[in-house]
Amino acid sequence: MSDQPKNKATVYIYGQQYSIVGNESVNHMKLVASIVDEKMREISQKNPSLDLNKLAVLTAVNVVHDYLKLKEKFEELEKQLQEKD
Amino acid sequence: MSDQPKNKATVYIYGQQYSIVGNESVNHMKLVASIVDEKMREISQKNPSLDLNKLAVLTAVNVVHDYLKLKEKFEELEKQLQEKD
Repeated sequence: MSDQPKNKATVYIYGQQYSIVGNESVNHMKLVASIVDEKMREISQKNPSLDLNKLAVLTAVNVVHDYLKLKEKFEELEKQLQEKD
Repeated sequence: MSDQPKNKATVYIYGQQYSIVGNESVNHMKLVASIVDEKMREISQKNPSLDLNKLAVLTAVNVVHDYLKLKEKFEELEKQLQEKD
């Protein structure tokens, strides 16, 4: 009924504190933050010379890639479901 | 057959140049980069005071959120498909 975000979570990502607001549960926001944190650490281990900006941008690149791959699989599944109808 | 990434793309995200290597097509890598660029610009418009680091991290947060939402929908669809079998 309202556009106002209801929940606010304080999270830590790669050692920095962030306040996240949104309509999702605090648990969901913390889960999202922990996934970003984990991915940043993974990418940083493979590329130790990256500065924080580039590390965060490449983390976003990585997740968008995963998103597009999942979207492809999602659309395939949708097609299969339509064929069964 | 090989773990060696085959393709390399030079992309621009939020005014910075990145070299991305991977097994995906150069077009796919450029699409991913353009989505990250667009999201960074969207988030920056809503939060003009964010520094670049935080902007990039919050972009990653945003994308992971979208990923988890799509994953939920994917799993629902999978369940529907199994019920039809």
